[in-house]
Amino acid sequence: MAALRGAATAALRGAAARFRGRAPGGARGAAGRQCYDLLVIGGGSGGLACAKEAAQLGKKVAVLDYVEPSPRGTRWGLGGTCVNVGCIPKKLMHQAALLGGMIRDAPHYGWGVTQAPHSWATLADAVQNHVKSLNWGHRVQLQDRKVKYFNVKASFVDTHTVCGVSKGGEETLLSAEHIVIATGGRPRYPTHIEGALEYGITSDDLFWLKESPGKTLVVGASYVALECAGLLTGLGLDTTVMIRSVPLRAFDQQMASLVTEHMAGHGTRILRGCAPEKVEKLPGQQLRVTWVDLTSDRKDAGTFDTVLWAIGRVPETASLNLEKAGVHTNPVTGKILVDAQETTSVPHIYAIGDVAEGRPELTPTAIMAGRLLAQRLSGRTSDLMDYSSVPTTVFTPLEYGCVGLSEEAAVARHGEEHVEVYHAFYKPLEFTVPQRDASQCYIKMVCLREPPQLVLGLHFLGPNAGEVIQGFALGIKCGASYQQLMRTVGIHPTCAEEVAKLRISKRSGLDPTVTGC
Amino acid sequence: MAALRGAATAALRGAAARFRGRAPGGARGAAGRQCYDLLVIGGGSGGLACAKEAAQLGKKVAVLDYVEPSPRGTRWGLGGTCVNVGCIPKKLMHQAALLGGMIRDAPHYGWGVTQAPHSWATLADAVQNHVKSLNWGHRVQLQDRKVKYFNVKASFVDTHTVCGVSKGGEETLLSAEHIVIATGGRPRYPTHIEGALEYGITSDDLFWLKESPGKTLVVGASYVALECAGLLTGLGLDTTVMIRSVPLRAFDQQMASLVTEHMAGHGTRILRGCAPEKVEKLPGQQLRVTWVDLTSDRKDAGTFDTVLWAIGRVPETASLNLEKAGVHTNPVTGKILVDAQETTSVPHIYAIGDVAEGRPELTPTAIMAGRLLAQRLSGRTSDLMDYSSVPTTVFTPLEYGCVGLSEEAAVARHGEEHVEVYHAFYKPLEFTVPQRDASQCYIKMVCLREPPQLVLGLHFLGPNAGEVIQGFALGIKCGASYQQLMRTVGIHPTCAEEVAKLRISKRSGLDPTVTGC
Repeated sequence: MAALRGAATAALRGAAARFRGRAPGGARGAAGRQCYDLLVIGGGSGGLACAKEAAQLGKKVAVLDYVEPSPRGTRWGLGGTCVNVGCIPKKLMHQAALLGGMIRDAPHYGWGVTQAPHSWATLADAVQNHVKSLNWGHRVQLQDRKVKYFNVKASFVDTHTVCGVSKGGEETLLSAEHIVIATGGRPRYPTHIEGALEYGITSDDLFWLKESPGKTLVVGASYVALECAGLLTGLGLDTTVMIRSVPLRAFDQQMASLVTEHMAGHGTRILRGCAPEKVEKLPGQQLRVTWVDLTSDRKDAGTFDTVLWAIGRVPETASLNLEKAGVHTNPVTGKILVDAQETTSVPHIYAIGDVAEGRPELTPTAIMAGRLLAQRLSGRTSDLMDYSSVPTTVFTPLEYGCVGLSEEAAVARHGEEHVEVYHAFYKPLEFTVPQRDASQCYIKMVCLREPPQLVLGLHFLGPNAGEVIQGFALGIKCGASYQQLMRTVGIHPTCAEEVAKLRISKRSGLDPTVTGC
Repeated sequence: MAALRGAATAALRGAAARFRGRAPGGARGAAGRQCYDLLVIGGGSGGLACAKEAAQLGKKVAVLDYVEPSPRGTRWGLGGTCVNVGCIPKKLMHQAALLGGMIRDAPHYGWGVTQAPHSWATLADAVQNHVKSLNWGHRVQLQDRKVKYFNVKASFVDTHTVCGVSKGGEETLLSAEHIVIATGGRPRYPTHIEGALEYGITSDDLFWLKESPGKTLVVGASYVALECAGLLTGLGLDTTVMIRSVPLRAFDQQMASLVTEHMAGHGTRILRGCAPEKVEKLPGQQLRVTWVDLTSDRKDAGTFDTVLWAIGRVPETASLNLEKAGVHTNPVTGKILVDAQETTSVPHIYAIGDVAEGRPELTPTAIMAGRLLAQRLSGRTSDLMDYSSVPTTVFTPLEYGCVGLSEEAAVARHGEEHVEVYHAFYKPLEFTVPQRDASQCYIKMVCLREPPQLVLGLHFLGPNAGEVIQGFALGIKCGASYQQLMRTVGIHPTCAEEVAKLRISKRSGLDPTVTGC
């Protein structure tokens, strides 16, 4: 793939040179060049939202999107990571995995059911069909909003001009007053592991597999790693996660521990402190993975049908020729440097979403940032995107939702003496009848200690965590205090009401286990 | 039962008279009389919460609880309506019904399952066992907190004295400085319908039936009626709801219509504008119900295995001898009149929960009111219970959660010109793969029209409505505005994020259907 990219880049450089020969940089409306108010490079969540909003506000807008096939050859349509190889297929497969648990619950609730093994092919087909319908929906939406869509790979020619190259090699020159880069990122492959690229897959491939991945090794400690491992386990596959150091590093570490503890207790094999060294293909198509236990320095090996790398993501800037436009990136992360206006080092070029430095890699933030940017470019508002207290949810088998600061971050920022943490181990009512294990159903609220005890963060581990956290995110946005929480009446019987009932502080040392009704 | 109650009341009057002969009213510590700081009459949600809180704050507390068997002879343990014949068994049976839908979803998600008919006996046994464990838990909690528990029927002797009569007729005299009435309510039977009491049951019986209720007629338009009908339908039973006038009268009427529309579209037969006239027992144990269609005045009849009355609830005050203490009730509702301090017409007698006039009939409000009352009685706080913006959820097959004002109430209070309603028809992601009908998945937010558009009410119809609404209730408690909501980032993919994405106002006339991702 690297070779491919190199070739494409070279071709683009040629195109740019030819273009400069024909029409001096900065000129607009020249023959063969299409002019827009706004060019959006990347048809993912952020790019599409920005483009549609700008078009609705009267701007002439084009979106350039091109999906480079994964090293394994997986390709998909318009909509970016979320729609095609992220949130959407992940959540549907997660739901399938959850249904497995519900089917096991069902006899306890009086349902006579017999459960056959899960059919990956049926699920994958359903998921892929849904994704394709969303691809189509995005095409239609762009058309409806009069946004011009180009299925081309974009590359800067100069600060106002982009060259788009189609799959067939056809070139289009596009210029615009404003350019938004929203190309997102792609899964990272390890660079020094033999066989990693040849035999491994990533989340770019998993959801598009026609056949079951079978016995799977997931390498990584990111939420992507844990979500993939969790859903595979839930679908009945023999699944191992290999974690080099700390799982869910950016999250509250107590919650992260509970997440992995729950997974380990429910069928996922977790190898901690291990690093893969080699992937080999065995004669029977299986993969033999060799790894090293970093504590003991001992080597070990296992045989898998699939090895999935979930070790992080790389911003998708390689083929953009950013240097032609003078757009600066962070040399370490490769991400595009932006200010609070989403502006890059070039005043009329912006970056939003996963490709931008320091932004949460989340669909809703990219969408909101894109919409707000379009509104600012259209003079409709001067409102900036507020990246603070962004809620999110990790869709592991037991879901983990959070908003605001982790306990560690709160203590680091305010000092332990000024932080009060309220917490509870609770049992969802629905767990009682099937006698489900609720050991990791846990909530913690991180507050300032001084009355009225401003809420700094909320962490919820349990069913429907995303549904639970969303509303509290509004509360925190409104400056909710623990005192106000204590005056909020619960909705009985729900899991969310346990948040409104948090009364035991960590400092008290009292048992935080909720008993009774 | 009326006769039974009359007899019990007469017996109690005798006891009171005897007692007055022995120990003049107001005296404390007399022989045979037990003295407490606080007597709580009623061991339901509110009473237990109040008693435990007061005891924890150092008060000498007794709880008097006695469950009069239902007319059908159903009896249960400590914990009140919520635990025994309300929230808890209802939600578990609702969950069982939801699981039926999940099992139908499962093949679309790749699970090979075959579904046999539902076993009521298995479910009922599981639910009843859980309830019994909660009864036990409440006993243990009272013991742990050193609250004295009397399984006696309480009746006022004078303003400081209560006589408790046990099942065996044994009398105990108890006096206290403060007395809290928290006896709740019981389902109402119709008074002029032949066969209603003999052959009908109520929610006091439903959850304790050992055998399936079979083909069921639910009479009523309350949330209890719709919840019971919904769960019975979901368990595969032929279920009819008979509604005289308006379903869910106290709720937003557009939402109420969608709730019943969803039920009607998913197997519940709904007879509107009909009133039952007679219930007869047929030779084969079935019940023949005759009703009148109030619009056409035509009579009709049907045959059912079970007739369930869910036409409202009656406050449980009949045997309390309130007149002995001078506690006033509302002659229309029969509920005990209280002020903002929960004080009745007698300064040291209080009423909380369903038995108190004008209170929402909800477990969490009773609990919070009870706790706050105990804290005030102990001098720990002067905080009053805030009954505004209490969130709640109706656990119909498609759940309806809400907090704050209905659209009608907002318009009535502020005028149509000053109210802005944002709304959306959305499709839960999980509905896509099994192609579930999402026609009634709807959200509406009622706001003041003037910026920043204070949120007055939120109404959510969809899966996990209770989980979704809880956090928003905190937001509304914190004075959330629509502007703040629009700055709250969504959690993708959830249903709750649709609240944060509400952008279409009713006034605009635009299509509120959410499309795409």
